[in-house]
Amino acid sequence: MKAMSKLKLKRARRQKRPLLNLDWQPNFRWRSPALVACIPLALIIVAVWGVAAQAQNKPLTPEDVQGVLNTIWVLIAAILVIFMNAGFGMLETGFCRQKNAVNILSKNLIVFALATLAYWAIGFSFMFGTEGNAFIGLGGFFLSSENPETYGLDPFPEGLPIAVAFLFQAAFAGTAATIVSGAVAERIKFVDFLIFSLLLTGISYPITGHWVWGGGLLSNIGFLGEDVAFSDFAGSTVVHAVGGWAALMGAAFLGPRIGKYAADGTPQALPGHNMGFAMLGCLILWIGWFGFNPGSELAANEAVPYIAVTTNLAAAAGGVAATITAWLAIGKPDLSMIINGILAGLVSITAGCAGVSYWSAVIIGAIGGVVVVYSVLFFDRIKIDDPVGATSVHLVCGTWGTLAVGLFDKELGLLTGHGVTQLIAQIIGILTIGGFTVLLTSIFWLALKQTLGIRVSEEEELKGLDIGEHGMEAYSGFLKE
Amino acid sequence: MKAMSKLKLKRARRQKRPLLNLDWQPNFRWRSPALVACIPLALIIVAVWGVAAQAQNKPLTPEDVQGVLNTIWVLIAAILVIFMNAGFGMLETGFCRQKNAVNILSKNLIVFALATLAYWAIGFSFMFGTEGNAFIGLGGFFLSSENPETYGLDPFPEGLPIAVAFLFQAAFAGTAATIVSGAVAERIKFVDFLIFSLLLTGISYPITGHWVWGGGLLSNIGFLGEDVAFSDFAGSTVVHAVGGWAALMGAAFLGPRIGKYAADGTPQALPGHNMGFAMLGCLILWIGWFGFNPGSELAANEAVPYIAVTTNLAAAAGGVAATITAWLAIGKPDLSMIINGILAGLVSITAGCAGVSYWSAVIIGAIGGVVVVYSVLFFDRIKIDDPVGATSVHLVCGTWGTLAVGLFDKELGLLTGHGVTQLIAQIIGILTIGGFTVLLTSIFWLALKQTLGIRVSEEEELKGLDIGEHGMEAYSGFLKE
Amino acid sequence: MKAMSKLKLKRARRQKRPLLNLDWQPNFRWRSPALVACIPLALIIVAVWGVAAQAQNKPLTPEDVQGVLNTIWVLIAAILVIFMNAGFGMLETGFCRQKNAVNILSKNLIVFALATLAYWAIGFSFMFGTEGNAFIGLGGFFLSSENPETYGLDPFPEGLPIAVAFLFQAAFAGTAATIVSGAVAERIKFVDFLIFSLLLTGISYPITGHWVWGGGLLSNIGFLGEDVAFSDFAGSTVVHAVGGWAALMGAAFLGPRIGKYAADGTPQALPGHNMGFAMLGCLILWIGWFGFNPGSELAANEAVPYIAVTTNLAAAAGGVAATITAWLAIGKPDLSMIINGILAGLVSITAGCAGVSYWSAVIIGAIGGVVVVYSVLFFDRIKIDDPVGATSVHLVCGTWGTLAVGLFDKELGLLTGHGVTQLIAQIIGILTIGGFTVLLTSIFWLALKQTLGIRVSEEEELKGLDIGEHGMEAYSGFLKE
Repeated sequence: MKAMSKLKLKRARRQKRPLLNLDWQPNFRWRSPALVACIPLALIIVAVWGVAAQAQNKPLTPEDVQGVLNTIWVLIAAILVIFMNAGFGMLETGFCRQKNAVNILSKNLIVFALATLAYWAIGFSFMFGTEGNAFIGLGGFFLSSENPETYGLDPFPEGLPIAVAFLFQAAFAGTAATIVSGAVAERIKFVDFLIFSLLLTGISYPITGHWVWGGGLLSNIGFLGEDVAFSDFAGSTVVHAVGGWAALMGAAFLGPRIGKYAADGTPQALPGHNMGFAMLGCLILWIGWFGFNPGSELAANEAVPYIAVTTNLAAAAGGVAATITAWLAIGKPDLSMIINGILAGLVSITAGCAGVSYWSAVIIGAIGGVVVVYSVLFFDRIKIDDPVGATSVHLVCGTWGTLAVGLFDKELGLLTGHGVTQLIAQIIGILTIGGFTVLLTSIFWLALKQTLGIRVSEEEELKGLDIGEHGMEAYSGFLKE
Repeated sequence: MKAMSKLKLKRARRQKRPLLNLDWQPNFRWRSPALVACIPLALIIVAVWGVAAQAQNKPLTPEDVQGVLNTIWVLIAAILVIFMNAGFGMLETGFCRQKNAVNILSKNLIVFALATLAYWAIGFSFMFGTEGNAFIGLGGFFLSSENPETYGLDPFPEGLPIAVAFLFQAAFAGTAATIVSGAVAERIKFVDFLIFSLLLTGISYPITGHWVWGGGLLSNIGFLGEDVAFSDFAGSTVVHAVGGWAALMGAAFLGPRIGKYAADGTPQALPGHNMGFAMLGCLILWIGWFGFNPGSELAANEAVPYIAVTTNLAAAAGGVAATITAWLAIGKPDLSMIINGILAGLVSITAGCAGVSYWSAVIIGAIGGVVVVYSVLFFDRIKIDDPVGATSVHLVCGTWGTLAVGLFDKELGLLTGHGVTQLIAQIIGILTIGGFTVLLTSIFWLALKQTLGIRVSEEEELKGLDIGEHGMEAYSGFLKE
Repeated sequence: MKAMSKLKLKRARRQKRPLLNLDWQPNFRWRSPALVACIPLALIIVAVWGVAAQAQNKPLTPEDVQGVLNTIWVLIAAILVIFMNAGFGMLETGFCRQKNAVNILSKNLIVFALATLAYWAIGFSFMFGTEGNAFIGLGGFFLSSENPETYGLDPFPEGLPIAVAFLFQAAFAGTAATIVSGAVAERIKFVDFLIFSLLLTGISYPITGHWVWGGGLLSNIGFLGEDVAFSDFAGSTVVHAVGGWAALMGAAFLGPRIGKYAADGTPQALPGHNMGFAMLGCLILWIGWFGFNPGSELAANEAVPYIAVTTNLAAAAGGVAATITAWLAIGKPDLSMIINGILAGLVSITAGCAGVSYWSAVIIGAIGGVVVVYSVLFFDRIKIDDPVGATSVHLVCGTWGTLAVGLFDKELGLLTGHGVTQLIAQIIGILTIGGFTVLLTSIFWLALKQTLGIRVSEEEELKGLDIGEHGMEAYSGFLKE
């Protein structure tokens, strides 16, 4: 036989790895005649373990297959999370003005490339490296270690292979960076965004991530009691609020876009130029979240679909709640509010998705959907100009979702009868991660402001960043042929 | 070791569930010395079952892993089906006029949120609840039961976990509702569409679904012979024709759009405003169908890729047949006909995808592709104004595909030499489901018409629903900057 | 119990296949009393093999589950590759002018339908059929064989089911054809593109593919030494360069678009009309490559995520390198160069993704990103008018990636200390596949040119192919309502 199977075998040989992990070799001593009498039957039992057992004398175990299944599932989840870059790109481009479309598209495309490289070089090690301390991880930079323990992993098949653990976490780091893009849109210099993204995904995000998911500071808050830890299952705070704080600082240091506020300070609507892109982006993000939350289980098991359902219920509740809220508050079911409501529900459930009931998921998502409408109006009023509402969706709802664990978690929540300890732990985590991120990203933004300058010229801003920064238009010749 | 593995263990502990389902405890009595002599060898055999066996004394079985694999596959299929909301959204928006784009995007986005909540509250129980009767299922509303039997499921690992069964079915319910959106586009009031979607996904769709997939009326048509059942593997009728009937009734009660018919009754073309969106939508739907049809196997096995291939062949044949038909009938290879031809092929194969040969799949898809072209022209002529051709694609081809099972199924079909019984069963199913859906959705539409009114004002329709219903434009400032 | 589980059983029965592959029947003779004494214990051991063992007396083996896992993973990879059609469609449409948008969308949509049918009829057999010779495969046309050996597959569970092997390979064939679409855009007659796609996917691509992946000519280059083979893991040459050569010949025979060159021969920019589509297309392709490369492992194992990481690193490095190169060479970070840089990185790593180190992946991708910028400028200068840069991305970087295996492969490369043999094999493969494809596709193009003519009239080209070929506009009424 040649062709596909032969090819596969050749590949396997070339790579010096077996097609399946069949390494067991029998290695025992004979004890007694009665024992030996059992051998024929034992051999039969072994024989029926399958083709491989007969052909290669190396049995494949259910644990091996489960390990591969964990690997494939987390890989698929990582792919879904990486797809979220398309979601953020479409959403943010659609919510901004045509004259800045190329700029936003460029930022949201290159940011995942930068995040990949920064996280590969240092970020993954700062976050999960086991040779560091409670503040920062160290070791195995550039994925240089083949020892799973370096990154806090058990050996395969019990633990995930290093490659898939890295890819999943790199996708998360990219998400934190892409959140910033929307809030600083339509006025930031392209080069500053690139540098900031490298700093965020290489240094700031991994350090606070280490505290929670890397076994650091917040993974054991001893003074609150034994085994108390800040709980953020899939990253309402670790990813979304961190991206949101960085976005808020960026928007604050940049100041509002020209024309956003009238002479008397009243906020003006600067509507987005492509609602089709925005809605498509929202649905891609919705889909991506089925990788983000259920994938954070880091294994394939029965909990995975449970998490998918809480995630979906919260998204639905957030969307419906925001629709109704906007209808009542603004008078119309505004599409951008429907979109932000769904995202608000998704961000809100992210911390608690694995530990709350279906009803709690609906309540958490619905509150997120209401909150996001008023939060958008609030930031407008205090003159933080965030063109796409990223701060409201990711920072405000991320924080709400993190608190919600302390309220609704079936095993830990105040409202489910488990006292206030977890809620206090959540507040501690929110404050320490928020404080550190505000401090560090402020240093980044200020350093960039002092050196390169972070804002484009007034002339360029008025004309649009597409011409100024990229020398091209998003819809060239669209109208003229 | 800390970090990822530790985190995973902590999560597992927190949720009070083991990482893997390893519950077996040895529990047997010793019988004889000869038996005891076998123990050392038996222990060795047990030992080589793998790491877990040694470390935890609880063997993981192949059945456990197969159960998880079933779960993960059906979850991924559900995600693909949910992604179809983006496909329908892009397709329908692209096929309609710019002035109504925000309205269509809003409908197609919020409809899955509404379907999720309605199906969670009552729909899933009406469809699969085992405490009802042959007409309607009951029990376990709001996913309140943790007993799989409540929803007709075997216990895990033999059956799917409740969560994933629900999510997959909720995605299907959402599909039925989103079909309606296109047919009633450009003239329906937003609030009516929301209410109708809740009624369709919460009540009408689950009841007829119960008859076929929930063990109800049509799952045993006794008078035709033992074991005869209406056969609709993935929902040509249960999902697509049901959505199509509801859409047809909506279009009929609404009446045609202003300008669709000239004074002499000749249909006028009201071309869609964004063919890029429409083509993208078609390809997203094509991808989504790889969840829709192969996922309907409800398990991971060798049949899954077979179904994927019949599905793909029918889509290809439908697209090519519609291209040729349009070229001959209209004189040009119209892109909207290519798109609808592919969708026609996909809808047509949905009922029979698991049971027909590859050649039959090509024939079924090709006939669907021819039929859809003439069907679009037909509905235009009888003054049913369906802006996107949803009735032709989903109702007409869904019905054709359901009949095709009675003709082409390898085990049941008339043309494969198995008599006319199954074809009669198919006709009975088509008529009963169609009749019931027409009746019930007519009541819904009429009730809405009498109370809220279902059509926007003439002024609003002319100006576009985006301003009237949502107070915004889809491409604000697109042309002016 | 009725409903879902019952339904599943009924389906299984109808299709005459078991839900799980449990075919083993005990079949041995009793030898001695001592042996018989072991039976009770043996039965206990068998019993704990799981639920199925108790209920059905047919044990499911880990190999069975692994086989299904391989199947499901390769199916998902195939779906991701099929999704690349949406990526190419959006990318190429966005990079072209509005007046030709419908034409490009139509080509990129129907091409996968045509590829599916041609590859089903003859392509798959020409490529993998084992009844042929070293030049061309034969046997099992129209997927008519149920014997896996016909297509070079081992029996399930050791090998993949025929259906999934076919679908994965059909998706690859479609990719080769869709590459051509971009290079010949804005001037080719629709009917010629359809016929050429059938010829490419049915004949040309499968023949050269047979040489490498079907056990043909290049899978054993004996005169270079024992076991030396041209190495192209996922198709830098087999898919991308083949598509690129076909595209180059098409662009050459068609000649440049009207207006592409000034009277003095200077190339003019004809900018694309929708950068949002182009960027979305790039990200969809990025995602799709996680099926393309890791799926080419044709099994689920630990190598899969490793390949995903090399793929991702190369994409990131290509994007960053192209951004910097364009910034330095053109003066601005051009979005189309960022996009083509990412794709260049992806194409470049495709041949070596399974066999190079992470650092090598970064270097290979970065070089691809630099090369693509200068290649685009080069083809412009030699008057090969390729509107989307397909030749530079797929042919030039595909060739670079194929050479890179001979330089960087951990087991074979010159730079990793394994001599020049593999590099020579790579050059031989590049030349023979390139030469054959140039020859055969030239014959195709010339035959079409002589019979139907391949280029639209000057009037039609100026007015746009949308009206001329399809009688419709892409953005009808976009501006007027």
